[in-house]
Order: sequence, then structure tokens, then C-alpha cells
Amino acid sequence: MKVARFQIDGEISYGILDMAEDGSGVEIVELAADPLVAGFDTTGRRFAFEKVRLLAPVIPRSKVVCVGKNYLDHVEEMRGVTGNTDAPPAEPLLFLKPNTSVIGPGETILRPAVSDRVEHEGELAIIIGALAKDVSEEDALKVVFGFTCANDVTARDIQIADGQWTRGKGFDTFCPLGPVIETDPDLQDARITTRVNGEIRQEGRTSQLIHSLAKIVSYASHAFTLLPGDVILTGTPAGVGLLEPGDVVEVEIEGIGILRNPVR
Amino acid sequence: MKVARFQIDGEISYGILDMAEDGSGVEIVELAADPLVAGFDTTGRRFAFEKVRLLAPVIPRSKVVCVGKNYLDHVEEMRGVTGNTDAPPAEPLLFLKPNTSVIGPGETILRPAVSDRVEHEGELAIIIGALAKDVSEEDALKVVFGFTCANDVTARDIQIADGQWTRGKGFDTFCPLGPVIETDPDLQDARITTRVNGEIRQEGRTSQLIHSLAKIVSYASHAFTLLPGDVILTGTPAGVGLLEPGDVVEVEIEGIGILRNPVR
Repeated sequence: MKVARFQIDGEISYGILDMAEDGSGVEIVELAADPLVAGFDTTGRRFAFEKVRLLAPVIPRSKVVCVGKNYLDHVEEMRGVTGNTDAPPAEPLLFLKPNTSVIGPGETILRPAVSDRVEHEGELAIIIGALAKDVSEEDALKVVFGFTCANDVTARDIQIADGQWTRGKGFDTFCPLGPVIETDPDLQDARITTRVNGEIRQEGRTSQLIHSLAKIVSYASHAFTLLPGDVILTGTPAGVGLLEPGDVVEVEIEGIGILRNPVR
Repeated sequence: MKVARFQIDGEISYGILDMAEDGSGVEIVELAADPLVAGFDTTGRRFAFEKVRLLAPVIPRSKVVCVGKNYLDHVEEMRGVTGNTDAPPAEPLLFLKPNTSVIGPGETILRPAVSDRVEHEGELAIIIGALAKDVSEEDALKVVFGFTCANDVTARDIQIADGQWTRGKGFDTFCPLGPVIETDPDLQDARITTRVNGEIRQEGRTSQLIHSLAKIVSYASHAFTLLPGDVILTGTPAGVGLLEPGDVVEVEIEGIGILRNPVR
């Protein structure tokens, strides 16, 4: 099931994607409230998909947790940038992005004046659906509401200069999420592709994650209580690179959709 | 003016501290709503101060921003721990604690099983009162609602092992705040004292901050949009040290109050 947050006639609602009864195209079935807290009751209203404006499918009330160095090929490419020759971390390396960095599909990534080097990092994002503290790997996926595409936009020069990654990865607009939340994708070996102006820059598969999705959720829940609406970014494959004004960056995950954002 | 968030008869309210009309002691004048969003209208109810249970005076809806290495004597003591011989940073070094780490006065700091070395860091906290983006140092204090005491509790072993400070400083209960928000303290040269079981461990003065309060707010607002209820921890003086089960840790700031928390 694909869940969207959207705006039509100035009003913000949640909905589920469905085929129109006459087969003419995709529609959004409006939900009565935020499905993260209120389930899937519908209002009976349906809108043509192309008539609505999609928003970030979730607004994290608490945390965007991120995992660094979770694809071997990306760990290797970063050695050339940072001079760090360490092996990939034995446990997930966690950091946070603030919820003020979240934007939705179609919204503009703004390069801050203080950085000369803003880069894309296409990632799979986990949306937490239930309060979770110290969950086991076996039970970890039960607290997951669904998955979406994310771009862990990074001011690489500031990330390196600060040492702590918070500021370089936390600027406003640096966490595009969307276009929709897929509640039950097949993530055994799903392709994650990042394109800039249509050209492929990053390509990976969820089968290449060093730490599994269940491991990441379990591990994060041992550090922080996870709340419904918290988001976990699971790391980026090799091929990170520059975003220039006028670029359009796309993160596509098989079975979920395409998150597209212009850059200014 | 001292603003509190408190619980009485199971109900949570906001209030202002005031002397009882008969001079017999301090009372809390109940406010109609959260003063951060609704001002200072009162309900007319007053409670004896010792009858209410104080809560964390603010629940950050978005961020707890922290500043590292902001007292020279603490930068010097950490050289012995980390081997890092860098000068203090020319700009504030920012990192985040999640809002799930916040607790109030009297609540228990829980040492996580994965750490052998949980330490106190007494700090002055700034409470943001208005949306702020790219504010100048001149205008920075206009977006501040008030100030409170904070303890930037840190699992030092995990902070050092991870390199990124997020996990070691982000565990549940690792951000005690309180006891109240003072909206207009004299912070030219206020004393900040941290005691464990009554013994002084850290002592500093706000006049020793490397980066001023106005500088910190301005700088943070250039990285992230600050929202009402966001909290900024301004750094800790020298003397950080261990917290053991059964300890009681106090952070006292002249003109604000004493934040006291047991440890388990």
C-alpha cells in the first residue's frame, strides 16, 4: 500500500494510492486522519493523482536518525576524501538530522552560502510506526510503518571541517523525503538509483547494506526511544557527488517511487 | 520572571513563580496555556510551590542544539582524554541531542548497560521563543524566551568510540532541564556550579564562554531554522566526571535555580 501526504485546495490530507474504478489512472483515496496515529479510515473522497500536490509523507515529531558508512563501496570512495582508512564500523554509526531539514517531493534544495560543495546521497528511509525501546532484531520490523526514498544532502566541506556531521548535514532543505510511503515493499534486493539531470550517479541494492534494516532499527532503539513518525536513513551507496544550481536530483527505489528535487 | 511546567492532581500546566500575598512562601500562578505560544494569561488558580511536581520546563518539538568546546578550561582537560591537541574551534561546534533524551528536575538519569563511563556536564541552556532563521548577533537575544539549567549527560566511552557524538550524548534521560525558565537573568558573569552528592565538581562563570550567547544563537540560526521551544546548550566548564548509581547530581546557575537529578 502506498501512503501519501498531500495538499489540494489549500487543505492538507493523508491518502492511499488506488487505481480509478474505470481504470483511467491512479487516484488518491483520502484518509480521515494521519494513518500513523489513526489507522486507515477513509473520508470517501477521491482525487486524481495528478491534481494534488504531494508533500513530505511524514513530518518527524522527534528524530531523523541516520546511519553512516553502510555500503562498502561508499566507505571505500570516502577514504579518498577524508584520508580515513578505518574499516567500516562493526556497529551502525548513528547521527541525527533535525526535522527542520525535511522537505517534500518537488521542493527546492537550497545550497547554503557557507558551502561550496553540496552533495547528494540517495538512501532508503525507514518510517517508524510504533513506540520502540530496546527491540530485538527479530521484532524490529514490527515497529516499522513503511519505507520511502530520502536524500541525505550533505555540505561535504562543512562536514569535514566540523568533524561532527550535524551542521554539514542539517541545513534547512537537506532532508528530502518521498514521494510516498510504501508499507510493504520487497526490499530483499531492491535497486536504489540516484540521478542528476537524468544521468545515473549512484546505484546500489538493498542486498548490499552492511547492517540490515532489522539490525539498524534494533540498534537505534537501544540508543534512543523511537517514536511514531521518526525516520531512519539507512546509508548511501558509492557515487556521491556535487549538486549545482539548476540541477534536478532524483532518488528512485524499486517498488517505492521517484523522489525528485530541484537545486538552487 | 520564573516560568515552570508542573503537574498537580494528574494535570499538567504552566505557571509563573510569585510570592504568596501573606508572604508565607512561593506560589505558582497557573497560566492558561503554554507561554511559548500563548503568552502569559492566567487562570486565577494559585498553588503552593512545594505542593506541585515540577516537570521539564519545555519539551523541544524540534531540536536540542548543543555547543561543544566552549570553555577554555574544558577544552584543555579533554586533551588528556582524547589526545586531540587542536585549538578551541574558531566557530561554535554544533551537535544535536534528540528530544527523547529530555527529563525534568527530580527525574532519574539512567546509565545505559552499554556504557561504563557516564559523566555529568553542567551547562546553561537557552530556550528559543520565536522562529529564527539567519538572525544577526545584534538581534539574536530578541528570539530568546529565557534560560534554564541543563546537564549534557555523556557516555564518554561511547562518545570516543563512535567519533560522532550523537549516540553517546543522546540516550534517554541524558538531557535533564530545569527547574524553571528565568526569562530575564543577569548573565554577565553568573556562576555555574555542578555538584555530585553535595561536592563541587565543576565551576565556571558565563563570562568565560568562548562564544557569547548572542553569537551561539545567531550561528545556530544560520545552520538550522530555530523554532519556539528549541533548546541550545551552551557548553560545559572544566571538571566533568563520573556519575555512579545512587549519586545525586546538581547543576546550579546563579539567578535561575538548582536542577537536581538522581542517577541509577
